[in-house]
Amino acid sequence: MTTDFTATRALFDLPEGVIYLDGNSLGPLPRAAAARIARTVTEEWGQMLITGWNKAGWMEQPARTGDRIAKLIGAESGHVVMGDTLSIKVYQALASALEMNPDRRVILSDTGNFPSDLYMAEGLCRTLGGDYRLKTVAPEEVMAALDDSVAVMMITEVDYRTGRRHDMPALTARAHQVGALAIWDLAHSAGAFPVGVAAGGADFAVGCTYKYLNSGPGGPAFIYVAPRHAEIARPALSGWLGHEAPFAFDPSYRPGRGIERMRVGTPPILQLAALDAALDIWDAVDLDDLRATSLALTDRFIAGVEATCPDLTLATPRAHAQRGSQVSFRHPEGYAIMQALIARGVIGDFRAPDILRFGFTPLYIGIAEVDGAVAILSQVMAERLWDQPEYRTRARVT
Amino acid sequence: MTTDFTATRALFDLPEGVIYLDGNSLGPLPRAAAARIARTVTEEWGQMLITGWNKAGWMEQPARTGDRIAKLIGAESGHVVMGDTLSIKVYQALASALEMNPDRRVILSDTGNFPSDLYMAEGLCRTLGGDYRLKTVAPEEVMAALDDSVAVMMITEVDYRTGRRHDMPALTARAHQVGALAIWDLAHSAGAFPVGVAAGGADFAVGCTYKYLNSGPGGPAFIYVAPRHAEIARPALSGWLGHEAPFAFDPSYRPGRGIERMRVGTPPILQLAALDAALDIWDAVDLDDLRATSLALTDRFIAGVEATCPDLTLATPRAHAQRGSQVSFRHPEGYAIMQALIARGVIGDFRAPDILRFGFTPLYIGIAEVDGAVAILSQVMAERLWDQPEYRTRARVT
Repeated sequence: MTTDFTATRALFDLPEGVIYLDGNSLGPLPRAAAARIARTVTEEWGQMLITGWNKAGWMEQPARTGDRIAKLIGAESGHVVMGDTLSIKVYQALASALEMNPDRRVILSDTGNFPSDLYMAEGLCRTLGGDYRLKTVAPEEVMAALDDSVAVMMITEVDYRTGRRHDMPALTARAHQVGALAIWDLAHSAGAFPVGVAAGGADFAVGCTYKYLNSGPGGPAFIYVAPRHAEIARPALSGWLGHEAPFAFDPSYRPGRGIERMRVGTPPILQLAALDAALDIWDAVDLDDLRATSLALTDRFIAGVEATCPDLTLATPRAHAQRGSQVSFRHPEGYAIMQALIARGVIGDFRAPDILRFGFTPLYIGIAEVDGAVAILSQVMAERLWDQPEYRTRARVT
Repeated sequence: MTTDFTATRALFDLPEGVIYLDGNSLGPLPRAAAARIARTVTEEWGQMLITGWNKAGWMEQPARTGDRIAKLIGAESGHVVMGDTLSIKVYQALASALEMNPDRRVILSDTGNFPSDLYMAEGLCRTLGGDYRLKTVAPEEVMAALDDSVAVMMITEVDYRTGRRHDMPALTARAHQVGALAIWDLAHSAGAFPVGVAAGGADFAVGCTYKYLNSGPGGPAFIYVAPRHAEIARPALSGWLGHEAPFAFDPSYRPGRGIERMRVGTPPILQLAALDAALDIWDAVDLDDLRATSLALTDRFIAGVEATCPDLTLATPRAHAQRGSQVSFRHPEGYAIMQALIARGVIGDFRAPDILRFGFTPLYIGIAEVDGAVAILSQVMAERLWDQPEYRTRARVT
């Protein structure tokens, strides 16, 4: 199949006059989502009330939608389930993996991992007590740091700051060789390129849906447990909807079948409706086409900026195999530069201390947007348009 | 102030021909919620995109909405925050409380607690290892079971099956006397009657919003930490939005100020929009009026059913002080009876093994609905209308 990205672009509601290069932070609104959410609200919640859990299929939706995610991350059907936030899913995966490797005490991660993953690991280690600890090394040192002290390797495939992509199959193979389990965070991978959790040998994978998958602010996370662990992994967060028979109201917990046990509490039905509408778009996307287009866009952006903005330093790897679907440049005045860009309709974001971050999402970004962004950025840089007091006042979130 | 419940009823979208006595499971749709959600979807997500986190105030919404909940549960302003599901909030409260009482190993709860609370406690004990354990006693034995082995008492104020209400101030005082901390689950309290977590001395309180508060399927939970613990409690689930400076992207976790540290991941903005619309209704409700009306309704239902249905056994306490806002009856054929009722437009629910459960929510239920439900129930019982094969086939959720 060949994807017509001109057609997919029309499926999104994007404001006039904006070049949106922040879909790696919050994806835009799929046009069909508004109607889908409204239907869930008025026809399901409003008319079915409590019976919606059966009649509208709310109860099974986390697994049904999980199967749609599975296709995008190269997972086996029936082994992905939706719920909670990514941080919670990181905790579940970590706690399960540590228990499956009971003689070891080290969680290995890298300093490029998203802080929340590291914080959740810190919190878990403190709760577990004893000599459990989180060890972080530089991203390029993960392979060498894998030794027989490591219980679990927890890595985010694509670095949120630089867009550098780790080699999932190679790191996972090495982790297994030394007797460690591998958890992959796909926050900047799912919907960014073809992911292969099964082929890559991941033991657990987690991710969010509000970035490249366009499920809206606060959309639910997902978790994958490899089939070989599905009936072994114990969810530390053992909630009733992960119970073998939630409506038996047993006094004691018995884990549900396979991935179902990773459910915790009542699923967020309105957010799931938005996600489901967003995933309809993905049904028509060939992920290899997506990847080829994404690389062409990021190559073009890098070339354009480097040709016109000598003060910006590329932070993203040039090698395709090491690149996600974003491009980052460094500049000491990165914050003010990004504010100047946003004021001119180019929306990317800033990540402390000095990263200008631009996401390229072929579903709704094409060559015209890349060239437009390059032109505005080069003007902002050449004319020092960022050097204004109003661009230096930091808001809490950028 | 005096609440006009005839006026509040018009604020809900209830299907024709239905007497909805299951608002203690899933509250109905507030008419204003559909428009509010649509505005959040199209004007905020659609038009503001990533800037919605600042411009639409999404980032602060969990605390802002938490303050609205605080008013309904008698909590101090600035000490309630929204997020996740109730089970996750139970885990956070438990883990924090156990760490604050490090020389003890027992979580005390009762067999009438909602199973998910017990499951989360079991999971936490297993993760903590050592001799941490969950001890459950009969509801009436909690007071006597409070001794100096108990680290934390974890009680759901109103029993989900019987509607029996515990005495929060008395149990909490006794817990403190023996050196235990008290966690209160308000799932069937918040919006059911005036709750007093501060006056009652609760150390932690948690609850959900999709029952009496009408936030819709999968609406976010809340957590309260008493001000005296706010800067001490450590969130075991230490996510980035609970960090002191989430956007500094520090490699190490530092808990945020007070209740903010109990945030974990990205908040569910669409569900929060629904909740916010639902809370607008609560602004005009006097909780003492609500309680008086609720008791009048449950008294009337009990009297009506007992006068006409001799085969049903009341499971709910007659004493007002021990009653929540629901009435439950037992019958061995409870499941089939409830199906027969639902087929006739009276929606309550069934809880295994033999409980028929009816929630009374003055915001949209009045005397006419009570009398209508009594009439249909008495006909179902007198004519054995439940004794049909189609009413005995169990669906997964009731």
